[in-house]
Amino acid sequence: MTHYAEEMTQLKESLLAMASHAESAVTRSMRALVERDDLLAQSVLDDDNIIDQFEVEIDDIAIHLLAKAPVATDLRLTTVAMKISQNLERIGDSAVTIARRGIELNTEPQLKAYVDLPRMATMALEMMREAISAFINREPDKARAVVRRDSEVDNLNRQLHRELSSYMVERPATISRCLNLMVISKCLERIADHATNIAEDVVYLYEAIDIRHSGQKLYEDKDPGS
Amino acid sequence: MTHYAEEMTQLKESLLAMASHAESAVTRSMRALVERDDLLAQSVLDDDNIIDQFEVEIDDIAIHLLAKAPVATDLRLTTVAMKISQNLERIGDSAVTIARRGIELNTEPQLKAYVDLPRMATMALEMMREAISAFINREPDKARAVVRRDSEVDNLNRQLHRELSSYMVERPATISRCLNLMVISKCLERIADHATNIAEDVVYLYEAIDIRHSGQKLYEDKDPGS
Repeated sequence: MTHYAEEMTQLKESLLAMASHAESAVTRSMRALVERDDLLAQSVLDDDNIIDQFEVEIDDIAIHLLAKAPVATDLRLTTVAMKISQNLERIGDSAVTIARRGIELNTEPQLKAYVDLPRMATMALEMMREAISAFINREPDKARAVVRRDSEVDNLNRQLHRELSSYMVERPATISRCLNLMVISKCLERIADHATNIAEDVVYLYEAIDIRHSGQKLYEDKDPGS
Repeated sequence: MTHYAEEMTQLKESLLAMASHAESAVTRSMRALVERDDLLAQSVLDDDNIIDQFEVEIDDIAIHLLAKAPVATDLRLTTVAMKISQNLERIGDSAVTIARRGIELNTEPQLKAYVDLPRMATMALEMMREAISAFINREPDKARAVVRRDSEVDNLNRQLHRELSSYMVERPATISRCLNLMVISKCLERIADHATNIAEDVVYLYEAIDIRHSGQKLYEDKDPGS
């Protein structure tokens, strides 16, 4: 294997490692919410810098690769890797926000059992995993499927937003809790958005068609519930 | 001027044009809010695809430039340009959300005169302009100043969030309006975040120091009011 190929492999491996850290952060932040576990939430806050460091590292590898004047496809792949890393970093930020809001929620009694939020988290993380795997394994079809799923999470967020709004009107004492839950729901919706951004870049990369901004259809659900 | 230098100039000019569209979108969305002007809000929604198209165009120019194997500084500059364009695209998205929420707010009487929101918008847009100008004119110090200002907008957002929360508790009939105002405040805080992201990349570019994730200090205000 040439040195160049080795570096390309390293780029992909770092991305996979970063994605797995981001996934773990989201999973832990949600478990901390459901189990009302402040310590677990705190671990998400403490580990955020690991994800941040990955972004720096991936940028450096990418710049190195770009400097070696490879073929056009590799250029695109490398710049897409940088974009993916930026999206993963923001998924990590969303996990931090979920963890923080979970800690705030733990200072009051729980409003009701969480059903929709864990479901949204599962969907968003599935989308993220599929998008990353589509990138690594050159599967634009799989990436397209991720883009199509974005509206599912958007709809759940919108529905939950409506429910929580009515709840606040009926029981003003729950307002601060409802607000925290709205923010968490919005974070999960945003994680799905980042997965969608990654998937759109992967489709573009492998099909050289820019579906990122191909028209209203993809974006008609862009502003769900906030 | 060589063809390469011409393309680099074109890259910068496209970025400047994109930034000015993004700024106009934010300005119009805020004017639409204050003046309760649905048509103006609608124009922000209609024009969003122009900003999106710029992102595609800038990516294409950038990939072209990267393919010409220039010196390492130019590689970094080009990849930073791509990141800036991504941030501008998201500023455009925030403007769209502000415009949408403004349209929703116009279906009910106005809660009170807007003071803080326009102030936040002014600050966020100033930061954006300074960050872009720091990029174009190679001024890392100016970019550093933008990074330092991020907490001002965060604080305003947090304060407004608190005020609106209390207001909701006192007057549940205002809940849906308060929620819309919270989302708008959060959008403005996010625009300042994007300006900060741009500024951090500019500092990194010109000082080759990565302050993006240099420690807690820069990020202690990361989760303000949502």
